[in-house]
Amino acid sequence: MRAARFYDEGDIRVEQIAEPTAQSDQVLVEVEWSGICGSDLHEFVADTPHALTGDVLPCVMGHEFCGRIQSCPEDSGLQKGIDHCCQKLGFLGVSGRGGGFSELVAVDRRMLHVLPNNVPLSAAALIEPVATAHHAVKATRIADWADKNVLIIGGGPVGVTILLALRAQGVKRIIVSEPTLARRELLSGLADLVINPFEEDVPKVCQDHTGGVGPDVVYDCAGIPQSIETAFKAFRVGGTHVNIAIWEKPMAVPMWDFLSKDITILSAMAYNDQDFSEVVQMLAEGKFHGYEKLVSTRISLEDLVEKGFKELVHNKDAHLKILVTPKQDTLRA
Amino acid sequence: MRAARFYDEGDIRVEQIAEPTAQSDQVLVEVEWSGICGSDLHEFVADTPHALTGDVLPCVMGHEFCGRIQSCPEDSGLQKGIDHCCQKLGFLGVSGRGGGFSELVAVDRRMLHVLPNNVPLSAAALIEPVATAHHAVKATRIADWADKNVLIIGGGPVGVTILLALRAQGVKRIIVSEPTLARRELLSGLADLVINPFEEDVPKVCQDHTGGVGPDVVYDCAGIPQSIETAFKAFRVGGTHVNIAIWEKPMAVPMWDFLSKDITILSAMAYNDQDFSEVVQMLAEGKFHGYEKLVSTRISLEDLVEKGFKELVHNKDAHLKILVTPKQDTLRA
Repeated sequence: MRAARFYDEGDIRVEQIAEPTAQSDQVLVEVEWSGICGSDLHEFVADTPHALTGDVLPCVMGHEFCGRIQSCPEDSGLQKGIDHCCQKLGFLGVSGRGGGFSELVAVDRRMLHVLPNNVPLSAAALIEPVATAHHAVKATRIADWADKNVLIIGGGPVGVTILLALRAQGVKRIIVSEPTLARRELLSGLADLVINPFEEDVPKVCQDHTGGVGPDVVYDCAGIPQSIETAFKAFRVGGTHVNIAIWEKPMAVPMWDFLSKDITILSAMAYNDQDFSEVVQMLAEGKFHGYEKLVSTRISLEDLVEKGFKELVHNKDAHLKILVTPKQDTLRA
Repeated sequence: MRAARFYDEGDIRVEQIAEPTAQSDQVLVEVEWSGICGSDLHEFVADTPHALTGDVLPCVMGHEFCGRIQSCPEDSGLQKGIDHCCQKLGFLGVSGRGGGFSELVAVDRRMLHVLPNNVPLSAAALIEPVATAHHAVKATRIADWADKNVLIIGGGPVGVTILLALRAQGVKRIIVSEPTLARRELLSGLADLVINPFEEDVPKVCQDHTGGVGPDVVYDCAGIPQSIETAFKAFRVGGTHVNIAIWEKPMAVPMWDFLSKDITILSAMAYNDQDFSEVVQMLAEGKFHGYEKLVSTRISLEDLVEKGFKELVHNKDAHLKILVTPKQDTLRA
C-alpha cells in the first residue's frame, strides 16, 4: 500500500510498504481523510526505539484521521478508557504505530470511535483537533462560561478550534488577536472582535471591550514571548492563562503581573477518550457550528510533502487545516 | 523619633525624624517588633511619587510589625476589608506610608488587627509572613489535604512558614529540599524528610517516597531555574506548582513536563484581610505549632543596617527571621 513515512527531520517519503496485519483485537481501517497537525512539523520521533511500541524509524505518520472499517474481529464491541497523559507518549500515528497518512491502518478496537450517521466522513478528521480544543476548554475549569470574557491569541487552526469549542459551551464574548489578514477575515464571522496585534494595543483594546477589567481567560495558541506578555498585561485579577502552544523558546512568565494579578497558568495537551466521545456526540448535535470551515485545502497522499508539509512550513498563513486522502476518487468527489 | 528610611538601593539610614500625626481615622501604634522581609532587600521603591500615596523617598520601611496602641479615635471599632491585589501596590511600610522600622506608626483603623491575650507580642511580627504562607496554601485550592504529598523547595523563612501553614491544614507528608546544613537541621524536626539538592536527586527521592507517583503540590520558595526544573521533573500528572518566589531571572517553564503532565501553575502573593484575621485566630488556637522558631535573631533598630540588612545579604543562610525593635528595654527583656 501507499503510505507517508517519517525518516528524519525534513525527510518524509510517500512510498510503497506492506499492508498492516490486524491483530486479534484490532480493526483494519481504510483511511478516508487525515489532517496534518502542526505537531507533525516538529521533530517528535527519535531514532531510538520508542519506549512504548519499540518501533524505530521510518514510521507512518498521521494521527488525525477517519475512515471505513475494512475488517474487524467478530466480537468487536468498542471499549473506551484511554488516558491522555501517557508518560511514554504512546499515540497512534506518532509513536511508531499508525498512521493516517496511508491507505490502511490497523487500530486497536478500544481506540475506535464509531461516527453517527449524520456526521460526514468528509470533515471527520477534524474531530481530533476539535477534541484537543474541547479538552483545553474543559481543562480551564470554569463552571459557568456565560459572563466570561475570553481572549484567544493566534487565530490559526488551534485558535479557531478553541473558538468553536468555546461557542459550544455558550461563551458570548470572544476576542481573537491574529496578525494575518486572511485569517482575520475568516474569523470576523466567528469572533466578536478580531484584532491585528501589529496595529493595535491588544491589552488596551481588551480592557476597553470589557469595561476596563480585562479578559477572564486567555488561550495562548501562538507560543511566542509576545503572546504571554500580551496576555498578562491584558488580564483581570484572578485570570486564567491556558497554554495550548508548543513553544520553541522557553516560556518565560512575566513575573510581576503573574504575582500581582493572582494568575493561574494551565496547560492543555491532547484529550482523553471521554473528550473524544463528547465531541463526536456534540458534532452529531450540531454544537460545533461552522467547523467545516477549518478545512482550507484537500490534497492527495501523493502530494503530502509538496502541497502539505512544505506549504505549511513556507506558506502557513494561507492555510488552516489541510486534509489528505489516499483515495483519488474521494479527492475528486 | 528614630526610624529607618530607604533612600536608595543599599542606602538605608537610621535617623531622627518627626513623629507621625494620626489623622481622624488613624491609630498611633508604638512599635514593639518588626520583621525584615526578603522583599525589603529588593529595590521596591522608585523615586517618582508613589501612585497611591504620592509619597517620595526617603520613606520609612517595615511592613511586618506589631506594637501597642498609643492613641486612637474614640469611636475606634475596627473594620476589615482590604484587598491584597491593589494594582497600585499600596502597602503600609512599602509604598511610602509606614512603617515598622520606627518608634511610632500612624495606622488606618481598618488596617489594625487586635491580638488575642494569649498571642505574645514577642513573636506577633511573624503574623504577617505566616499570613502570606496561609494565603498561598489556601490559593492552592485543595479541598482535602489529608492524603496529599507536598514538596517545598527552599527551606528559608518562606519555606518554613509554608510548612507551618500546611501542618495547620493537616498535611501529613511534607518533603523539603534545602541546601544549607543549618536550615536542614532546623527543618528535620518539622518536615517528614529533608533533602540536600546538591547531594541527592530530588525528583527521584520524592518519587521513591510517594510510591513512584511524585508530589501533588510543590511550593517554589527558591525562584531559580533549578527549582522549577526540579519541581516539574518530580511532579505527578495533574500536579500543582505554587510560586511564592520573586524571581531575579525570567521564570522559564519546562515546556514538555508542563504539557505532558497537565500541571497547573499558580502564584500567591501577600494575603488579604481575611487571611490575616484567620491567622490571628489560628495562632490563638495553637494551630501554628513551633512558629516562634522562625525567629533566629533579635536586634535593635540602631543595628538594622549592619546586623539586619547586611547580614541577610552576606550571611543569609545563618538566619530565618530577624526581628527589630526600637525599644532597648524590649531587646534586653
